[in-house]
Amino acid sequence: MTRTIDKRATLSYVGSVLKYLSAAMLVPLLVAVIYAEDAWVFAASMAIGVAVGGGLERLDPDPELGPREGLAVVSLAWLAAAIIGAVPYLLAGYGTSSALAHPVNALFESTSGFTTTGATALAEISFDRHSHAVLMWRQLTQWLGGMGIIVLMIAILPELAVNGAQLMRSEAPGPDLQKLTPRIAETARALWAIYAALTLAFVVLLYALHLVGLAPDMDLYNAIAHGFSTLPTGGFSPEGDSIAAFSPVVQWAFVPFMVVAGVNFALFWYVIRDDPTEMFGNTEFRVYLGLVTGFSAVLAVGLFWGGAPTTAIGGATRGVAGNALRQGVFQVASLMNSTGFATANFAEWDTQTRFFLLLVMFVGGSAGSTGGGIKVIRWLILFKTLRRELYTTANPDVVRPVRLGGEVVDEEVIRGILTFTLLYFLIFAIAAMFIELDTTRIGQPLSGTEALAASLATIGNIGPGLGPLGPFGSYEFLPDTTKLLMIVLMWIGRLEIVPVLALLVAGVDE
Amino acid sequence: MTRTIDKRATLSYVGSVLKYLSAAMLVPLLVAVIYAEDAWVFAASMAIGVAVGGGLERLDPDPELGPREGLAVVSLAWLAAAIIGAVPYLLAGYGTSSALAHPVNALFESTSGFTTTGATALAEISFDRHSHAVLMWRQLTQWLGGMGIIVLMIAILPELAVNGAQLMRSEAPGPDLQKLTPRIAETARALWAIYAALTLAFVVLLYALHLVGLAPDMDLYNAIAHGFSTLPTGGFSPEGDSIAAFSPVVQWAFVPFMVVAGVNFALFWYVIRDDPTEMFGNTEFRVYLGLVTGFSAVLAVGLFWGGAPTTAIGGATRGVAGNALRQGVFQVASLMNSTGFATANFAEWDTQTRFFLLLVMFVGGSAGSTGGGIKVIRWLILFKTLRRELYTTANPDVVRPVRLGGEVVDEEVIRGILTFTLLYFLIFAIAAMFIELDTTRIGQPLSGTEALAASLATIGNIGPGLGPLGPFGSYEFLPDTTKLLMIVLMWIGRLEIVPVLALLVAGVDE
Ligand SMILES: [K+]
Ligand SMILES: [K+]
Repeated sequence: MTRTIDKRATLSYVGSVLKYLSAAMLVPLLVAVIYAEDAWVFAASMAIGVAVGGGLERLDPDPELGPREGLAVVSLAWLAAAIIGAVPYLLAGYGTSSALAHPVNALFESTSGFTTTGATALAEISFDRHSHAVLMWRQLTQWLGGMGIIVLMIAILPELAVNGAQLMRSEAPGPDLQKLTPRIAETARALWAIYAALTLAFVVLLYALHLVGLAPDMDLYNAIAHGFSTLPTGGFSPEGDSIAAFSPVVQWAFVPFMVVAGVNFALFWYVIRDDPTEMFGNTEFRVYLGLVTGFSAVLAVGLFWGGAPTTAIGGATRGVAGNALRQGVFQVASLMNSTGFATANFAEWDTQTRFFLLLVMFVGGSAGSTGGGIKVIRWLILFKTLRRELYTTANPDVVRPVRLGGEVVDEEVIRGILTFTLLYFLIFAIAAMFIELDTTRIGQPLSGTEALAASLATIGNIGPGLGPLGPFGSYEFLPDTTKLLMIVLMWIGRLEIVPVLALLVAGVDE
Repeated sequence: MTRTIDKRATLSYVGSVLKYLSAAMLVPLLVAVIYAEDAWVFAASMAIGVAVGGGLERLDPDPELGPREGLAVVSLAWLAAAIIGAVPYLLAGYGTSSALAHPVNALFESTSGFTTTGATALAEISFDRHSHAVLMWRQLTQWLGGMGIIVLMIAILPELAVNGAQLMRSEAPGPDLQKLTPRIAETARALWAIYAALTLAFVVLLYALHLVGLAPDMDLYNAIAHGFSTLPTGGFSPEGDSIAAFSPVVQWAFVPFMVVAGVNFALFWYVIRDDPTEMFGNTEFRVYLGLVTGFSAVLAVGLFWGGAPTTAIGGATRGVAGNALRQGVFQVASLMNSTGFATANFAEWDTQTRFFLLLVMFVGGSAGSTGGGIKVIRWLILFKTLRRELYTTANPDVVRPVRLGGEVVDEEVIRGILTFTLLYFLIFAIAAMFIELDTTRIGQPLSGTEALAASLATIGNIGPGLGPLGPFGSYEFLPDTTKLLMIVLMWIGRLEIVPVLALLVAGVDE
């Protein structure tokens, strides 16, 4: 049986997404006007996006989507977002010595933004090199990508809601998409409303700290910029020193919001609806909090005993309880759910501490959160499944389902999780090999561990890696081939691999 | 429901295995007599093994085994074999400066032998340092472990055959154990007969090459010694330079027998029974041969273009077609199915060639062969399963079973393979981390890639790794903690992980 993908319907949907996403450039345009910078960059980019998007939209005025078109829309919409997002970088960088003048860097930065990875191709991040508008666009891409551009479109475009449930499932194929309301558009709106409200609360908090004098560098621009990149587990900052640029009070203020960003946003909806047991009785939520707490404690103790060299950004932690605790909690809250902010250069920490962070990075956020990676619920079901298989090996006469929170997990869901995890590890490992070979080729070799961290940092949408790719480093020096690979890794990582590969398999079949 | 393991029955069976395995020390005893070496080492070891084994046997004169006891017998029998195998090393090393005087090294060498890993804790391998008898025992342990010590016991002990099928399945839990004959003892005998006949043929070939003057160093001792370690995909050699010690003709002679060692031995039984289509129509067999051929060609071309430094053992390959072909074919035939013989120091080859060899090492042998690792049939079913999952993602209305060679693969088998592979990767990765940290601790750090190779070389029962653990290197310098971890890795790797872990889970339940 040959099945074809309806290309006109697919491109029409992608065109809609592109058009409305381009409209978001009004924000950096406004910033450019305020700071008297080159507003034409964003005016032109927006015009291009709206024109191309509108043109594609006309290919099919009344598009209908099957499962294959759904996969194609989601995969291509994220690609289209990355491309249109790169246009202002290119225009702003044109004719300058900025890294963004190079198309691969611009696409890298845009993909890293929308996918909430937060890895940067910029060697120097400062207002001397980049305009306020460009650096704010960088932040905004993270916010747009955080809750999912498809979810956003479903929330604002009623005509997309017809195929909404299926599209949302393709965008976030995790095992736990809950329909909060009978109508999917309402669910999408509820999720975005919670996300926006939490973002606003964080911006207000940061700016309030500034106004009372506890955060001298956290002006309104910085408060909004970091609001745009915290709830989406993004990790971009207009400050070259990331969150180490701010006072300890500000660093502590980030922690609860970073932790919240890794929680299933649907649970907050239940809390609003006066049903807090849905949150506090949720197995994944409890394990997520337990892991953040446990890992933080281990890292804080480790840093107190040794870990951070005295000279590094972030200061000495050995024997300094307050600093060890703050650094430990911050880095775990940031790295476990794939945010990637840093208050210390953990790339310079000792070997066992860096290995510990690598393990932490493998966890990921919760299903339905903005966090990337393998995710807590998958690890839970995975360990329960492995235990079940071992149990039935020793007791072949027993049939035992896998249960989570009292409910039986469907065997098909289990198979999906096993498939995802294996693909994740295979792609991660092969990409790491490629990265090491490719950097060896240009004479700037990453070590084996650094190559593994780089692969994980991009496919897991984390951002910072180790060595020269650490939190205060840059991906700029990497060869274009590695950057292109990483663009693919960030893209398929954000979509949790399966949709993109399923589309490829469907394409091969066709 | 609490289930207990019948400890007396389990230990009684393990005692039988121990007793009869110890009798195999007659071979090195004979060698010691011939070479006028200290025969008391093996007489004493044999006495200990027979006494302890016989004592355990009496715990339960008529033992009955359930599934849990089956797992326990197999797991503990291999442990017992490793321990009794270490006794002659300890006795021979006692009071000398030999590495074998240290219990951890002796246990490492014995475990590496029986599990057919072939990693050595000896820094210097020569008759100046070790007796002919000790080095022959080292070879013999590989031969005894190759086809499985449980299979061997079932073949020779009629009383073990009652639970034979279940025990054999626990020893080789791969997806393709075929009952060749109605009675399991006959199947075991057929497999061992084929194995012994191929071994004999290889010994005769090697010695014949010696007699006609084509293999000056391949005397009768060496011919037998290498016969003991080739068909079991073992890799031990009494020569410090492995197969590089011999002439190109001898090296070529090894290739077909190494390739055969990675083939499902049941297929030879069909060939003997005049049913060769069972072999040549077998999907795994065809893919195995295809991979050996394809990888060999790639490596040979790679070596011809660059690869091997001129100064290394094995000679220059760049531009030397004959040598590039021989080195390429030999190393792939040896490393893919986990044999681990070498004719060149591949640890010194360039980065991409070493990475290629790492990929080759991940393949493994065939089910029912003596080869270790993940194995060809698992990769086949894995890729077909991943493809199926991706296909049904794009076509959710289609139900599609996984087929191999025209037959539907049971979903339970698929789940078992997914479980095994995930456990394999998880343990492999965590062990590599531990190895890197532990070697860093003692101030002799392995690089990230070397630590990964070391983990793979032991859990995959391959033997040689990279860096200082290369084919002409030694594991001696590693800290005891890493050696003990590797002993566990070799043990659970040989038993394909699941039985040992299932036993642990059953033990925790109890
Ligand atoms: K991130
Ligand atoms: K081996």
